[in-house]
Amino acid sequence: MQQNFKDKKKLIIKSIETIDLRFPTSKEFIGSDAMHTNPDYSCAYVVLKTNCPSLEGHGLTFTLGKGTEVIVSAIEAQRELVVGKSLGEIVDDFRGFYRLLTSEPQLRWIGPEKGVVHLSTAAIINAVWDLNSKFEEKPLWKLLVDMEPSELVGMLDFRYISDALTPEEAVGILERLKATRGQREKEVLADGIPAYTTSAGWLGYSDEKIRSLCREAIAQGFNHIKIKVGQDVNEDIKRLALVRQEIGNERKLMVDANQRWDVDEAIEYMSKLAPFNPWWIEEPTSPDDVLGHATIAKAVKPIGVATGEQCQNRIIFKQLLQANAISFCQPDSCRLGGVNEVILVFLMCAKYGVPVCMHAGGVGLCEYVNHLAIFDYIAVSGSLENRVTEFVDHLHEHFIDPVIMNGSKYTAPKNPGYSAEIKKESLEKYQFPNGLVWKQQ
Amino acid sequence: MQQNFKDKKKLIIKSIETIDLRFPTSKEFIGSDAMHTNPDYSCAYVVLKTNCPSLEGHGLTFTLGKGTEVIVSAIEAQRELVVGKSLGEIVDDFRGFYRLLTSEPQLRWIGPEKGVVHLSTAAIINAVWDLNSKFEEKPLWKLLVDMEPSELVGMLDFRYISDALTPEEAVGILERLKATRGQREKEVLADGIPAYTTSAGWLGYSDEKIRSLCREAIAQGFNHIKIKVGQDVNEDIKRLALVRQEIGNERKLMVDANQRWDVDEAIEYMSKLAPFNPWWIEEPTSPDDVLGHATIAKAVKPIGVATGEQCQNRIIFKQLLQANAISFCQPDSCRLGGVNEVILVFLMCAKYGVPVCMHAGGVGLCEYVNHLAIFDYIAVSGSLENRVTEFVDHLHEHFIDPVIMNGSKYTAPKNPGYSAEIKKESLEKYQFPNGLVWKQQ
Repeated sequence: MQQNFKDKKKLIIKSIETIDLRFPTSKEFIGSDAMHTNPDYSCAYVVLKTNCPSLEGHGLTFTLGKGTEVIVSAIEAQRELVVGKSLGEIVDDFRGFYRLLTSEPQLRWIGPEKGVVHLSTAAIINAVWDLNSKFEEKPLWKLLVDMEPSELVGMLDFRYISDALTPEEAVGILERLKATRGQREKEVLADGIPAYTTSAGWLGYSDEKIRSLCREAIAQGFNHIKIKVGQDVNEDIKRLALVRQEIGNERKLMVDANQRWDVDEAIEYMSKLAPFNPWWIEEPTSPDDVLGHATIAKAVKPIGVATGEQCQNRIIFKQLLQANAISFCQPDSCRLGGVNEVILVFLMCAKYGVPVCMHAGGVGLCEYVNHLAIFDYIAVSGSLENRVTEFVDHLHEHFIDPVIMNGSKYTAPKNPGYSAEIKKESLEKYQFPNGLVWKQQ
Repeated sequence: MQQNFKDKKKLIIKSIETIDLRFPTSKEFIGSDAMHTNPDYSCAYVVLKTNCPSLEGHGLTFTLGKGTEVIVSAIEAQRELVVGKSLGEIVDDFRGFYRLLTSEPQLRWIGPEKGVVHLSTAAIINAVWDLNSKFEEKPLWKLLVDMEPSELVGMLDFRYISDALTPEEAVGILERLKATRGQREKEVLADGIPAYTTSAGWLGYSDEKIRSLCREAIAQGFNHIKIKVGQDVNEDIKRLALVRQEIGNERKLMVDANQRWDVDEAIEYMSKLAPFNPWWIEEPTSPDDVLGHATIAKAVKPIGVATGEQCQNRIIFKQLLQANAISFCQPDSCRLGGVNEVILVFLMCAKYGVPVCMHAGGVGLCEYVNHLAIFDYIAVSGSLENRVTEFVDHLHEHFIDPVIMNGSKYTAPKNPGYSAEIKKESLEKYQFPNGLVWKQQ
């Protein structure tokens, strides 16, 4: 398709289309947890249109319904930083482009690099990577795996993390595994990468539903199952007993409090769940509280502390690692500033020896993390030990190139791009507030 | 005026008006620093209209121009959480109202409690306090000073900070100074509270302009002068030499890097500015980097580290205090979730023995911090030692009840309210993009 555009510098981004897309998942309690009781899985969706009609970049950032329009407004504010640039201009100085989006002198006041303006940055950066992967006719993970370490590292913005990781160290981490990349690539293509499931454990499900979902998960081959906790300790004890009954003592059981607790409360609460031998406690408290996580981590050992889905940027992850606050790192592919910042977190985790278990679920996140976790395994960590990627089985039917599971494993995407392109009919039907689904509410 | 509304429960918020207000300050380099090179001082402005036509609540959150519309969009998203409630309902359960705004289950995903959605929360909360103060016919500071410790503490949300400060400890801090409040109130009414000036030190000013502004500041009685640094170390050395020449060795000289540096860079750079004996280095690095600030603080002693204007919430301040990362605490009245969260930071600072020197300047911030710093002195800290509040002398002419300086001191506001009500003609003229000023650009 890119016959006319052999030179990326001639592929110009002519416009950005933004869509507020919402799925009415709250009706079925899908995704309900101790803090987010009624999520409508949604996204701010971006289409980069170019001077080549058959080449578009699609990107998204995940949301829970209300507020998606606020992110759309932020994308509109960043529009002038993107439109008119060529793909070549962007990827040849990706560090500069990232900095341009995150440090625009007026816009940075309302961040910087956090919350709404960082979520909008993620949607744009992810769309650029989709466009670039399509141009190169490779799935994103393969594009990344094929890059020279120094080329990739040159794309990353080390501002505010150079005390923990320098560009030279990053190149070293990638070089170390370069010779053996091919071997892991073969393995991934044959076997996929391991996942865990959250499908069984949402709050609001009946005991019977939880039992049957556990059995289903085991039948699919899952050895790691995650349960939401934090609303009521006695309820949680009952549910964990029930889940342990179903899954046995060998399989890993993780619990997730979704930031429900203060620091001392988390320690006290977890002492009561400890008898069920949780592998990790996820989001015990505020994602902003590095020192709080460190205190909890010390107190709840040998249970590991996990967090990341709401950690705002690489600077928080840097500190979590520096403070020995986490045993598992769970970055979000859309809350961080897209692919570039996620890779920086992978590299820091490799240096500090903490496994990455990416956050997913929602809408589009599984499609994204599949690429990222594969890249992490092949090029950055080189290990699958203690590494499982979250998987939730819904809303995949809206994607042109959805994740394909092989039992409990993600299989490697084969099509060019970053896999988050949503079907035209879904874009129309679920657009908020004018899509058919919302007009009928 | 509230004859018909003796009961706050009958004063109903009927609607919220939002205004995107921008002043074209970038033309004169006002406010330009190492990271924010072209600010147009702006605000997202909120008017709470009630069923009493003469009683409105006015509130704002400060911005730098672009992106103000994104905050307006966030305020619109929060509208349904506010409209229809009575003032009584809100202030009788202010902790619950704060939690409602900050933890709305769908909206919290795009924060939580940070960036755009927290700035919008601030504008609303500040407007509620303005309304409440007008209802009570007191300036905000006096309303706060007259409250019982337990009543005030009951309004604050201790979520995620109870490991550093409990409600009981907070009441204790306030009780300790209660008996002597009257004496400090008299003193403040007679003398005002001390300020420092940033007017002399923006980047982009010529040497001659800096000299003359220093002389002006001294003539006004200022003993604390702040200079922007961080773009070029040789330039900075020249400017600091020039400023020291003008202000002498006795007056305090503060420097402000506006997050320009990485951790190691900050330490290295400050070793070169140390000969000019800076009292503090402000924002040496990212506002998110608690551990980075702690590392810098250790290295640059006896220079104090100061930060806060871009610290997103009480959880970051908690950690800065726990980690001994700052010698001066500079919260922003509009970046934190309004009056309630600012008071929590005051209380934590009192417990940890760190002086508060509030961030101001911009538009409306001086009007706000005057109330807050007076309250801090009378009711929380009880001391003026090492406490100076920022002052910048512009844009005050747009306010109905602007700050009045007595030389280098803020004087106590006397009118009911929280002083951020902007004149009708200014609201019209500077509205973006349809105000006269912007139509002419």
